[in-house]
Formats: sequence, C-alpha cells, structure tokens
Amino acid sequence: MLRRGVFYSHRDLNWILDRYEKGTPFALYTGRGPSSGIHIGHMLPWFFTKWIQEKFRAKLYFQITDDEKFLFKDFDNLEDATKVGYDNILDIIAMGFDPNLTSIFLDTEYIHHLYPIAVEVAKRITYSTTQAVFGFQNANNVGEIFYTSIQAAPAFLPTVEAGKEVPVLIPCGIDQDPHFRITRDVAPKLGYPKPALIHNKLLPSLLGPGGKMSASIPESSIFTKDTEVQARKKVMNAFTGGRATVEEQRRLGANPYICSIFRQYEYIFEPDDGHLAVVEQTCKSGERLCGDCKAELWEKVRPWLKAHHAAREKAKDRVEEFVIRD
Amino acid sequence: MLRRGVFYSHRDLNWILDRYEKGTPFALYTGRGPSSGIHIGHMLPWFFTKWIQEKFRAKLYFQITDDEKFLFKDFDNLEDATKVGYDNILDIIAMGFDPNLTSIFLDTEYIHHLYPIAVEVAKRITYSTTQAVFGFQNANNVGEIFYTSIQAAPAFLPTVEAGKEVPVLIPCGIDQDPHFRITRDVAPKLGYPKPALIHNKLLPSLLGPGGKMSASIPESSIFTKDTEVQARKKVMNAFTGGRATVEEQRRLGANPYICSIFRQYEYIFEPDDGHLAVVEQTCKSGERLCGDCKAELWEKVRPWLKAHHAAREKAKDRVEEFVIRD
Repeated sequence: MLRRGVFYSHRDLNWILDRYEKGTPFALYTGRGPSSGIHIGHMLPWFFTKWIQEKFRAKLYFQITDDEKFLFKDFDNLEDATKVGYDNILDIIAMGFDPNLTSIFLDTEYIHHLYPIAVEVAKRITYSTTQAVFGFQNANNVGEIFYTSIQAAPAFLPTVEAGKEVPVLIPCGIDQDPHFRITRDVAPKLGYPKPALIHNKLLPSLLGPGGKMSASIPESSIFTKDTEVQARKKVMNAFTGGRATVEEQRRLGANPYICSIFRQYEYIFEPDDGHLAVVEQTCKSGERLCGDCKAELWEKVRPWLKAHHAAREKAKDRVEEFVIRD
Repeated sequence: MLRRGVFYSHRDLNWILDRYEKGTPFALYTGRGPSSGIHIGHMLPWFFTKWIQEKFRAKLYFQITDDEKFLFKDFDNLEDATKVGYDNILDIIAMGFDPNLTSIFLDTEYIHHLYPIAVEVAKRITYSTTQAVFGFQNANNVGEIFYTSIQAAPAFLPTVEAGKEVPVLIPCGIDQDPHFRITRDVAPKLGYPKPALIHNKLLPSLLGPGGKMSASIPESSIFTKDTEVQARKKVMNAFTGGRATVEEQRRLGANPYICSIFRQYEYIFEPDDGHLAVVEQTCKSGERLCGDCKAELWEKVRPWLKAHHAAREKAKDRVEEFVIRD
C-alpha cells in the first residue's frame, strides 16, 4: 500500500520511526464511526494498521465513536449507534489483530478515561477554530462542536496511561485529518507529543469514478455481511475501463486507471507487483478482457470473504478479549 | 427560609408536590462548583435541601462540577479542581445528609453515567441557544459551550436509573437558572419529566450591600475552615445598618434591612420568627445596638462552627459512604 501510494501522505512519520529506531516504542490509534455495516473501504486502513502492529509490535487503541454517530444525526437513539458499534467490532476482531496488543473501546463506555483528557483539549479549542476547520454554524448542536475533543483524546491516552511520553501513529482516511490537525495544534500546549499521521486515499466505488464506497449504496462496495452470491454479483457488475464491445477492446485496449476492479487489486487484493504490472499491461494492450479480471479478482475475494465470515462468527465469542471498559 | 422569602421563586414545585401527595416520590438534585473553600453562602441551599430530604425522604444527587471549574478557567489543571471538589465534599457530608439517601459524585469520576445523557441533551442544544442564554462568543472554548449538557444530565439520571419517570426537584441559587431553563426545554424532546426548581436569593456579603459572598474576599463571609478567632472577627467587623454614634442610634434607630448581621439571622441562624421580629423592632426603635446583635449572632455562629469543624473532621472517614463512582 505504501509502494502503490494508497497511503500517500503523512505528518511526522519520520519522527516516529526515528524514535522507534532509537528504542522508543510507539502506539497505534485508529477508529471507526459506527454508522452502518463494514465494507472493504472501511477496512483499508485496518489492513495497514494490522501490518504495522505486526512489524513493530505496537499497542493499538481502536476507538468506536458511537457518540459521534449519534450527535451527527446518523441515529435517533444513542443505543442504536452503540449496537452498530458492537457489530462493527466483530469485523475488527476478525481482521486478526493481536488481542494482547489491541484495546477496542466505545466512547460511551470508555468515557471515564477519555473525558478528563477531552476536557483538557476542549479548553484549548475555541468555537472559532471549529467554525474554520469543520464549517460549523450557529445551528450546529453543542455536542457536534465539542466532539473533536473526544476524537483527540485517544491520541494522548497512551501517554496518560504510561505516565511518560508515548508517541502515537494514527493511520486514517484523509477525511479524518481535520480532527487531528487540531489535536496536533493542542498537543504541545498540554505537554503531550503530537500524534503522527499516515493517510490513505479512499477506495473508489465499484460503480465507477466520482463515487465513493458508501453504506447507502450497497452496490458500491463489498460488505462483510454480503453473501457469496451478493458479493460475486457486485464484482461481476462492477464498473471497469473496458470498451463497448469485445472487438473494440481487443483492438484499442482498455483503461485500468478508471477501473474499479483494477483498484481493488491495486489497493488490497494483489500483493504481487509483478502480476499487477502484467494486469495493467495486458489490459491496456487489449490482450485481457474485463471478464478475465473480474473472474480473477473474484477468485481472490471469494476465499477472503469466506475466511472473514468464519472469523467474524468466531469473533462473537472473543469480544471480551478485546473490548476495554474499566 | 420559605416563610422569609429566602427561597422565593420556583418552577413546577406544585406539580412535584401534587405528584408526591398522590404517591410518587421525587429526587433532589443540587450541586457545587468546586472553585474554593465553602462559606455559609454556599451552604444556604444545602440547609434547605437537607430539610427537604428529611421531610420527604428524598434521594439526593449531589453533583461536583470539577470539569466546569477547569473549563471556565478557575484552574489551570483539572486535578486541582477535582482536589478542591473532594475538600468541598467534606463540608457537604458535615451538613448531615442521610448517607442512605445521598449520592455525591464528581463529573470527571461519574462521567460514565452522565455522558450518555449529556450527549442526548447536547444534540438538542444549538450553539445559538448557548449564545443567547450564556452570552457565549466565538472565543469561548468548546468545553464551555458543551458544559451545560453535563449540568443537565443529573436532572434525568434518576429516571434513567429507575427505568421509569422520577420527577426531580433542584434547589439552587437563582444564578444557576439559565442551565435549567435549557434542561427544561430539552426534557420533553427526550421523553424525560421537566425538572422542577426552587431558587434561593444569594446571601449578602458581611461587608455590606451590593457585594456578594465571595471566596476572593475572605471578609465577605464566614468560611467553614475559618478558626473561631477569624470567624468572630468577621462577625464583629460586619457591616450593619447602625448610626455613626450610639447617641444617634438610640435617638433615630437603625436600619435592619441593609444590615448583614440581620440578614444572617433572617436567612439562616434564627429559627424563631418571634425573636426575629423583636430584633427587627428593637433595632428600628434604637433600643438595640449593633454590638448586641453581633454578640447574639456570634453566640449562634460559634457553636455551629465548632460543630461543623468536628463533623468536617469526621467526614474525612466517611467519604466512601457518600461518593459514587461506579
């Protein structure tokens, strides 16, 4: 993902790695706003986070922002957000994070630890700042306005818990950067290290360019609760860069750079750069047809989805291994 | 205090009492912003609250708003506010509240119970509302803006904990009314009963009219940690409605209505209306001199202060009887 530019931007990653090389471990922090079921777009930073956890043996703090999803109007009842949070946690556990190095928490359940830090942060953020950064207006509710303090808190939690400076790396979608720019601004005023960030691009929709994967458009992505039949249909119907006819495609070649199938390879499902280059080349030359790619990708997605379904089922008995409340 | 108009305003008190007479118990909720040591002005609503607790066997929720006092800049460190909170709790316990009917909590320690309710409340309060009610501006911090949600939460806590509608009565200084007007507006939208309120006037300063009792002016009130010598001096130096000379006072009489000593009688230390009327009359007639009143009041304050000191000392071993965290 690094080589391919899926993670394409960072803040202070060098600093974290330099310190690591000199013997200072870092913690990972990422999160999930539980508005719906999980699709592979959501999982993109989680694959990467898991890889970092394995490589660096880093402790991971995984925040489930049920309060956010209630305050920003995805739900009428807070409990519904919490319930979706627990459903999403099954997917997180199914990713294979190390239970000894992973703490998952819901904001409403772990608030006892978050709130004292959030209040420290909140005191340093004016309404003006949230206006400028998030575009808040007078009609926004006071929970929305306060919320960024809650998202900032886990960036300082490892330091608070350890009683000494613990640098934190946050892998996240680029859309979350505004929260963490504020967090980084506030950090030195509170005597905490600034969290480092590494940002991923958002995985494009299976329906084609311009769209993003979205729970409100089921066809836009493969969801972890899709059946094999549903998932296969989505792959087979996905938008590609192919031509109108086979004849034309053989003659002129296709365009992998707008193809959602090629993106799935590139972003997640094809570890082999050599094969990816072959796909790219043979697509452009017209040698390969879209049906070939779809069938090939499905052969990768199918066992992955099956394994995830099984791991997700097992995760139901493993929630207490991961979730912290006290 | 009711007869004398110390508690002089209410919202929905009749409703609470009517329901009580029909068999529905109510809960009490009051609070303390722990910015400093406790003086008798702070205790005014607590005396009254204790009386209601005794008369109605009402469960009391006592909120210590350490977060507020940090956010609104009384302290640079949150822990300092929490520390003052625990010091103030000794005075609350020393008042003689029934431990079986009293739960004291600090916001930062009980937030796990408050936050889910506060978030529900916050979703229903716009920034505009806090602008209009509290005069917040763009330079206010986002914790200040959110805070009223935290002060609203205990008004709904008895209902949440009981799983059924529990009416709440809030005895408080009139200065706290804006928070609870918002709370009352939001209540029906969330399906909670509106809290009833009963407001007390603020006890005037010992230094005379126009001032209020304030921790930043030690002479303005008797503090619970004053020594006997300090307290006596404050009573003896208090502002009265007396004349420039004894001769003049004998001839023209004095003015009890601007007298801080008379106010202490009226508000707290003289249960006997008959004696109070005598004091008022003989003051105005010039029969009684200010020294008489000061000596008489001191004879009431001295044993009260001594008993409070002793009860405060004992309270140090009783904190866990009252404070809830889980």
